[in-house]
Amino acid sequence: MRKIYDVMLVHEEAKGEALLSRLEGKRSLFVCTIGTTETAKISGISAAGKYPELTDYTPPADVELLLLGKCKCISGVPVTPEGIPTPALITMSALRLADIPALVASGGLKINPQVPFLDLGGNPGRDIRNGKAVNNVREVIERARIAGQNLAKTADYLVVGESIPGGTTTALGILLTMGVDARGKVSSSMPGNPHELKIKTVEAGLKASSIEFGALADDPVKAVSCVGDPMIPAFAGLVIGAAARVPVLMAGGTQMAAVLAIVKVLNPYVLRNLVIGTTKWIITDETSDLKGIVTQIADIPILAADLDFNQSKFEGLKAYEKGVVKEGVGAGGATIAAMIKSKGYITKEVLLEEIERNYEVLLGSK
Amino acid sequence: MRKIYDVMLVHEEAKGEALLSRLEGKRSLFVCTIGTTETAKISGISAAGKYPELTDYTPPADVELLLLGKCKCISGVPVTPEGIPTPALITMSALRLADIPALVASGGLKINPQVPFLDLGGNPGRDIRNGKAVNNVREVIERARIAGQNLAKTADYLVVGESIPGGTTTALGILLTMGVDARGKVSSSMPGNPHELKIKTVEAGLKASSIEFGALADDPVKAVSCVGDPMIPAFAGLVIGAAARVPVLMAGGTQMAAVLAIVKVLNPYVLRNLVIGTTKWIITDETSDLKGIVTQIADIPILAADLDFNQSKFEGLKAYEKGVVKEGVGAGGATIAAMIKSKGYITKEVLLEEIERNYEVLLGSK
Repeated sequence: MRKIYDVMLVHEEAKGEALLSRLEGKRSLFVCTIGTTETAKISGISAAGKYPELTDYTPPADVELLLLGKCKCISGVPVTPEGIPTPALITMSALRLADIPALVASGGLKINPQVPFLDLGGNPGRDIRNGKAVNNVREVIERARIAGQNLAKTADYLVVGESIPGGTTTALGILLTMGVDARGKVSSSMPGNPHELKIKTVEAGLKASSIEFGALADDPVKAVSCVGDPMIPAFAGLVIGAAARVPVLMAGGTQMAAVLAIVKVLNPYVLRNLVIGTTKWIITDETSDLKGIVTQIADIPILAADLDFNQSKFEGLKAYEKGVVKEGVGAGGATIAAMIKSKGYITKEVLLEEIERNYEVLLGSK
Repeated sequence: MRKIYDVMLVHEEAKGEALLSRLEGKRSLFVCTIGTTETAKISGISAAGKYPELTDYTPPADVELLLLGKCKCISGVPVTPEGIPTPALITMSALRLADIPALVASGGLKINPQVPFLDLGGNPGRDIRNGKAVNNVREVIERARIAGQNLAKTADYLVVGESIPGGTTTALGILLTMGVDARGKVSSSMPGNPHELKIKTVEAGLKASSIEFGALADDPVKAVSCVGDPMIPAFAGLVIGAAARVPVLMAGGTQMAAVLAIVKVLNPYVLRNLVIGTTKWIITDETSDLKGIVTQIADIPILAADLDFNQSKFEGLKAYEKGVVKEGVGAGGATIAAMIKSKGYITKEVLLEEIERNYEVLLGSK
């Protein structure tokens, strides 16, 4: 696969390459959208917390790490059950190296972070199996749109990432109600991707809300309200508001397809300004198919940060190469932004060194 | 008084002029810090609401006007008891003309705005007469500092404004506890400035908390906690975080002196990056003395937008020339930013035309 610096051109190469060269050296703003959903507490759905209740703390802890360099609402950093650290560690390291500013936007949280965050008027999400997952979706999209409009005036482009445990399951819910066949294609933070469980969970939500596959193709607000999560409307609104003016790098894995499907219905005009930026681990994952979902929606470029933790001295980081975690907190997109801002000076080796340095500090301060 | 475009050089002319020329045509970000305090409900203290309870709605309504061009939490726009419209109308018009982005930061509110706002972990303020006015001051300053650090990376300079009814009384409280003699010098949104009432109110708070004039000269956190308001720590933290990197135009009247006193203690290094931007109406006001307070603290430049509503076709705007309202919601600073961004193309006449156009729309939509 062709690369520019350590950025892989995964899909729509020419458009992706043109965008990279246009944004080289330019100023970006990273926005991390967060939310929580009870869906994450279904046994086996998410690796984001060691215990189900910990999933409420993962998003606030992730953004605390981004803005402060350490977590406040938990000790240490968010880890998988095996102790593998949050991808926020990658994001934080990339943003620091490249001196890229970060903001946090909440779509609805059980626990608020102990750092500044944009309140968008949302509430935490419910278990999608009841078919009434999220309140106030239209209003959150609208408020996020206003924020996106203003933030777009502060940067040459926006990088928007996310943190919400259980998010690939709710993304699957939105995609299926909107007629995008994502069964067996969404990714997972666990090496064994529990597709059957995710599909069963979404199907329970569809049944509870009497919705069939594709029935909400033109009604993304209802799709999110029934079987989505509160991060999604925040993310989609930011994209709609910002991409009317500047390019937006949607930083994430298969959840980005759900955002894309929503944006396409609410404002197809902005699609020309969108690109997905993810990690190599999402692209090489054999249990998911980002490109296979995205191309059902719109042919926007997909870029991937060619991160490589094989040579890391930390087992916790090496585990990323075995398919654990893979992506999250905009790790791939933040890495891409850091690489192009530095015009390639920040290579995957430079970044790994910074990540290890930060990880060491965090391990020592536990 | 010497002017550059329609910006008056009020104090520290040479420094002010150098800064204006350095910022000409540059990108700014406007941040409106808001809060509420029960102090505003003391009869005769504030003109910001027709009825005391309305003061809870003024700050959210002001920022809704800024971001949406109309208010949501109230019908119409905030007005004085005589029907004179909020200075947010000036700010909104200036920001729109010059395409300057705006964000909102809350230090603690009774009523949240129906637009995106940065939550800084604060609470609404209590009546300062009990001497226990604000919670969580240190934490709000710290969170605001983090926000300011990040926002400073998105702009060439920041313009920070405020909206909090009762704010000149709480500013007087902070100034007196910190040893700045501001008695009879703080301004008022009313033509008759109720100095005696303000002093009596502050003295009750000093007595309740057993603090004498100047006793908290080195402890601004305690000064705000005892007799301040929740907007102030948000404003001060933003200034401290941002001015370490870029110039900050502190947009307001005599309340800016209270912010300045706090910043001077917490981080005197950033003073070199500060300037106060206000309106002509504050400078010509004979019932207050901005310069007389500021020069007791630090010799930073004072600029004033030479706004002129004498020729307005609206009585509600003409009233500004009679000393009603005068300043607020960063009206003076936003006007200055618009004038220097446009390199003088936006004159006071151009701005008045835009303000009248917006006012007309708002009057029609009531």
